[in-house]
Amino acid sequence: MITVNEYFDGAVKSLAYEHNGKSTVGVIDAGEYEFGTSTHETMIVVEGAMEVLLFGQSEWKTFSAGEKFEIDSNSSFKVKVTGQVSYLCKYK
Amino acid sequence: MITVNEYFDGAVKSLAYEHNGKSTVGVIDAGEYEFGTSTHETMIVVEGAMEVLLFGQSEWKTFSAGEKFEIDSNSSFKVKVTGQVSYLCKYK
Repeated sequence: MITVNEYFDGAVKSLAYEHNGKSTVGVIDAGEYEFGTSTHETMIVVEGAMEVLLFGQSEWKTFSAGEKFEIDSNSSFKVKVTGQVSYLCKYK
Repeated sequence: MITVNEYFDGAVKSLAYEHNGKSTVGVIDAGEYEFGTSTHETMIVVEGAMEVLLFGQSEWKTFSAGEKFEIDSNSSFKVKVTGQVSYLCKYK
């Protein structure tokens, strides 16, 4: 079963599946978003680049294809993208 | 705009977007499928592994996360997966 998820009026869409735990691959439209986490997440940029502001940090960091960052459970992070970006997210 | 595509009664789903040309990220359920191409495609495995039989070849080859293969336009390829697999596809 592959589940389609949509957020921010379709500006972010993802496909949820199982591979050694829950995973999603998704696409983010140009814009700025804030995501909340209920479990620990590892975000891996598949294509494109995203600027990320992790909770409690004051500096935005840029992550490009192949690079990853981690977010604690019950936390949040902001993402800014100037063009469509795809990602893989692993949930613990 | 992010377009959701579904094939084989939902056993394959993809999200289409633009990044230096058309791209899709998608997920394939366990099973065997044959895909046709209208343009040249580069398939990159994001997570998991897939066995692939390219048109005109007699041997299946296995591609794992990070590995890629190319398919000519107006051709076809078969894919066998034993668990859910995600991929990135680039269209020329």
